[in-house]
Amino acid sequence: MRALPATDAADAQTPRIPLADPSPAAPEGFHPKAFAGEVIPFRVVAFREGHDRIGVHLRLRTPNHVESLHRLVPLEDGTDRWQVDVALDETNAWTFRFEAFADEFATWTHAAEVKIAAGVDVAVMQALGVQLLTRASNDKERPKPERKHLARTAETLASATAEQALAIAADEELAALFRDRPLTSLDSATGWQTILVERTLAGAAAWYEFFPRSEGAKRNEDGTIASGTFATAAERLPGVAAMGFDVLYLPPIHPIGRLNRKGPNNTLTAGPSDPGSPWAVGAAKGGHDAVHPDLGTLADFRAFVKEAEAQGLEVALDLALQAAPDHPWVAAHPEWFTELPDGTIAYAENPPKKYQDIYPLNFDRDPVGLYTEVLRVVEHWISQGVRIFRVDNPHTKPLRFWEWLIRTVNTKHPDVIFLAEAFTRPAPMRGLAAVGFQQSYSYFTWRNTKAELEEFLLSVSQETADYMRPNLFVNTPDILTEYLQFGGPGAYRIRAAIAATGAPLYGVYAGYELMENVARPGSEENVDNEKYEYKLRDWAKAEEEGRSLAPYLTRLNEIRRAHPALRQLRNLRLHWSDDDAILVFSKHLDAPFTGTDASDTIIVIANVDPHSVRQTTVHLDTLAWGVEPGTAFEVEDLVTGSVWTWTDHNFVRLDAFTEPVHILHVKGQR
Amino acid sequence: MRALPATDAADAQTPRIPLADPSPAAPEGFHPKAFAGEVIPFRVVAFREGHDRIGVHLRLRTPNHVESLHRLVPLEDGTDRWQVDVALDETNAWTFRFEAFADEFATWTHAAEVKIAAGVDVAVMQALGVQLLTRASNDKERPKPERKHLARTAETLASATAEQALAIAADEELAALFRDRPLTSLDSATGWQTILVERTLAGAAAWYEFFPRSEGAKRNEDGTIASGTFATAAERLPGVAAMGFDVLYLPPIHPIGRLNRKGPNNTLTAGPSDPGSPWAVGAAKGGHDAVHPDLGTLADFRAFVKEAEAQGLEVALDLALQAAPDHPWVAAHPEWFTELPDGTIAYAENPPKKYQDIYPLNFDRDPVGLYTEVLRVVEHWISQGVRIFRVDNPHTKPLRFWEWLIRTVNTKHPDVIFLAEAFTRPAPMRGLAAVGFQQSYSYFTWRNTKAELEEFLLSVSQETADYMRPNLFVNTPDILTEYLQFGGPGAYRIRAAIAATGAPLYGVYAGYELMENVARPGSEENVDNEKYEYKLRDWAKAEEEGRSLAPYLTRLNEIRRAHPALRQLRNLRLHWSDDDAILVFSKHLDAPFTGTDASDTIIVIANVDPHSVRQTTVHLDTLAWGVEPGTAFEVEDLVTGSVWTWTDHNFVRLDAFTEPVHILHVKGQR
Repeated sequence: MRALPATDAADAQTPRIPLADPSPAAPEGFHPKAFAGEVIPFRVVAFREGHDRIGVHLRLRTPNHVESLHRLVPLEDGTDRWQVDVALDETNAWTFRFEAFADEFATWTHAAEVKIAAGVDVAVMQALGVQLLTRASNDKERPKPERKHLARTAETLASATAEQALAIAADEELAALFRDRPLTSLDSATGWQTILVERTLAGAAAWYEFFPRSEGAKRNEDGTIASGTFATAAERLPGVAAMGFDVLYLPPIHPIGRLNRKGPNNTLTAGPSDPGSPWAVGAAKGGHDAVHPDLGTLADFRAFVKEAEAQGLEVALDLALQAAPDHPWVAAHPEWFTELPDGTIAYAENPPKKYQDIYPLNFDRDPVGLYTEVLRVVEHWISQGVRIFRVDNPHTKPLRFWEWLIRTVNTKHPDVIFLAEAFTRPAPMRGLAAVGFQQSYSYFTWRNTKAELEEFLLSVSQETADYMRPNLFVNTPDILTEYLQFGGPGAYRIRAAIAATGAPLYGVYAGYELMENVARPGSEENVDNEKYEYKLRDWAKAEEEGRSLAPYLTRLNEIRRAHPALRQLRNLRLHWSDDDAILVFSKHLDAPFTGTDASDTIIVIANVDPHSVRQTTVHLDTLAWGVEPGTAFEVEDLVTGSVWTWTDHNFVRLDAFTEPVHILHVKGQR
Repeated sequence: MRALPATDAADAQTPRIPLADPSPAAPEGFHPKAFAGEVIPFRVVAFREGHDRIGVHLRLRTPNHVESLHRLVPLEDGTDRWQVDVALDETNAWTFRFEAFADEFATWTHAAEVKIAAGVDVAVMQALGVQLLTRASNDKERPKPERKHLARTAETLASATAEQALAIAADEELAALFRDRPLTSLDSATGWQTILVERTLAGAAAWYEFFPRSEGAKRNEDGTIASGTFATAAERLPGVAAMGFDVLYLPPIHPIGRLNRKGPNNTLTAGPSDPGSPWAVGAAKGGHDAVHPDLGTLADFRAFVKEAEAQGLEVALDLALQAAPDHPWVAAHPEWFTELPDGTIAYAENPPKKYQDIYPLNFDRDPVGLYTEVLRVVEHWISQGVRIFRVDNPHTKPLRFWEWLIRTVNTKHPDVIFLAEAFTRPAPMRGLAAVGFQQSYSYFTWRNTKAELEEFLLSVSQETADYMRPNLFVNTPDILTEYLQFGGPGAYRIRAAIAATGAPLYGVYAGYELMENVARPGSEENVDNEKYEYKLRDWAKAEEEGRSLAPYLTRLNEIRRAHPALRQLRNLRLHWSDDDAILVFSKHLDAPFTGTDASDTIIVIANVDPHSVRQTTVHLDTLAWGVEPGTAFEVEDLVTGSVWTWTDHNFVRLDAFTEPVHILHVKGQR
């Protein structure tokens, strides 16, 4: 073959059939992520010049190099995008590429049907068809009977009448033979891409946060409080497990600094019996690898983890990389902190404000020493049975450090999960997710109106889902939004229902059940913040008196467990209502991915105005779950048990003072 | 230094200060483009953990490897984006990268100002300042007097009162020394990127299209028409030049097929004196490298090009890669076409419709042969003085072919420009631009309402501007939109004014001046389409009788030439009006880029409803051109000469029957 006239770059990079924008994809060359069982929409832009038909395949390799081929379907929305959904079941690195090809038989059937019907080029179309069928019949990789059938069809077509030829071009069975094994030419491909599949809990879990020192804490006769211990906290495990949570997250369990310890409500001086903030890590008794003596011993901690496991709960530990002034690191490794010209160590600050109970770490003075020490701490807790870390303020440490730490840990322990507790601007939050964090806190707490929630849910389920998994905490010790402060019980139900159904990861901090809604004046956090004191709560009594949201949370978690559609992130779709406070979304999963014979569809309709009773019409894009518009179908309210016959336009009435949210299951689906 | 614990990837890819999303950038790894004189916003996302200040530099290398450093400014819009505008003057490949660093002096001044004022850490802040000033004074690359000044300031600071120290921290002159040459640490960088700078005409030009056979064509006594020639067409050149156009584009000038020639209005049979469509290229007299005998000889063509040049017009030739059935290629190279089983060659078709005057090329049967032949044709016309090609229907040929052709031609002839005449879906249109086309036809003709135009203008000036340059043709021989058919003279003014000011590239097909607005019934093109017949137009008489838009087009082109802001693509900004038919946008260029001492700002206000007189209030974001909201400034209407005093809110009245568009120049700007 002759060569083309030479250019600087000898060849063109565009494949013969252009392929662009392959996804899933992550920014800056990082790998996109999935979790075991996640249904991933594999998408690519593919087109060709002219009218001939193309086909697109996804070639997928499991971590064990088992290859499979999946045919994509054109979205036909003018974007030239093609898609196929695949559930990735095995953890570890999968690879994939897209392959496009001229689909010669599809091109022929399309032209033949139109032209033969119009009496144009009948003989030519027959001859072209015979060529294709003969070529296919010679393909030694096809089963023998199929090859015979193709050869016979070629013969028939050669001498067919126009009517018979038309029937062959329109034959569904014949078309199926070519769909499974197309006659291709102009074969083109993208480069190979990688997608990291992590364990299911990385992507789908209900979290619960409690302070072990509060669970089982008791008031002494002198008015002081005796700390709870791992042993007393273990007594609360059945209650948390019964609510249906999957992960129990503990704030730092290490010795708490005595120097400059904060008192109740973040006051500057602590009394002798004030326990201090667990995030002021380290004291004479030890640092990040030690257990607070009030809670027990390392052995007690291991027993607690084991007991939690027995109850179906995984324990997540806090990783707060900062030190109280009396942390052992300070004396032993001043080079891990910022030293000032006067020989002191710099406090955490937001000039001119200073936080004198905390020294921030300086990652640039002895990076090797400090990186190695943090890795040692993480490995230490892994050896105690911990597999999940909730990382405090990761955005105040170098992104580069996290990339290194998470990759290093996951290389040895691929099942370890890191949750980024970063509340900051989008770029650093997305950066943390891209470099490796398995989960991320999100803006959810501050997205309360219908418009805000619509934008938020679309953003996390579509825009960033390839690399960022939002964990929708409804509250934290530091976040009690005005919506909750002033929204009454309705607000607590609304937020819990949307968090539990809007994303496969959500979280609740203890006290939410009791609708603790009194803020420290002028702040966005609970008064008498548990960070600085013990909390004595009587869970059982609250339930008895009907003052607890625990039954509602339990029901939400039951619904999540029963409905696989709710344990996916990317399958969210917004619908419409005529009321600016009625939010409508659905989550749908096709039958092949539900583990049953039926597809699973949940419709969530929430009145997000907690002070109102609203009625309106909701408009559903029922095609999202395969129901033709105008067709009636049955829905069951999974909270109340009511059953209604619905179509694509339905009246709803949502009373924020009783049941502000419908969680509807579409019944009778295949 | 100790090594970090090993991982599979020994190091992290994130730089110490994260840098992301560098732009300009093009999709799929292609290079972004600019034109000589284009002002490029170089942008990058950069942030760091914590509160310390960072700085960002653009390091830029000209094609001749001259390096310069440009300081970026944070946009401070919550996106962590930084930007600096640079005009790229030299053609060819530039390279650039972004560099981020901890800006230690800026961190110090910020903290010192806040803390010293609050009486916190005064001594420590002074000592830190002395350290920094001393370090800077030891920098041997600073001029001696500067080093002395820094050393003296360090001494002063060492023994200063708090008040004096505060003054030093706030000293603007001192800050300037560090802005020019910051004290950096944690230096980080992106990889090197490439941007291709093409000649100015690739990005800024007014195009005019005429059929040379019509210019100077004369009606014979028998009613037939004698074709115009290059010689008679040359007589029209002064008229086109006087209107201020830069590029004169000619439809194909080659022999036209006789076999199955189309007649008037695309009818199937041509009469003996019907000239046929120039896009049916090739006949016995020659193919793509020949000149139609009616027009003259190759020498006549060269003379025409030369004469155009003398008038300030560059000639653009059509490259229509298809063949009439009697094109010489057909007999000599049947392998460049699709041969059917019956031995015939396949016509162009949209089944069951056939276009029997055209054979499409098949690029897959003998790619080397056909690619080489097209390259030969292009080189042939380049040798005749052509430097611009308007490519007909490029989306019906392989993208890969265009990538190869354009790169091959531009490697030898970097000044050659290709305009893609593709009207199809966004993905292939963007693909053509990404692989190398210097210019692209756009959706402009079909964007007529205010909302459509706003979306369109934002899309082309922001979203795709890094690699796609839209040429806003107001009409073509194939496009006479309903807006023009029924909008009257107002419509013609509106569309011309928006095209000429909305983008630096726009185009007009002859006849627009005469507001030829009668369509072939049921179609979107002129009746008696010039593609199939000669057009006899009396330009002079129309002007004499005041029936011509030529004076308006002339004025538009004068305004474009006088205002460099209009010869940029990316500087468009939308503003607001209270009327849904009053479109408002501005184009601004800072003083350093105008070639004068003053910045240049144009505000365009168009009533896009051609059947109305509208009055409303327009609301301007005057900060876009450095004017504080509420401040009065003078504007001159460049069409009528009226001068008004405006502020950020102004009354306008636009009469579609007289002057539907204000093109305002902001006067008295620095």
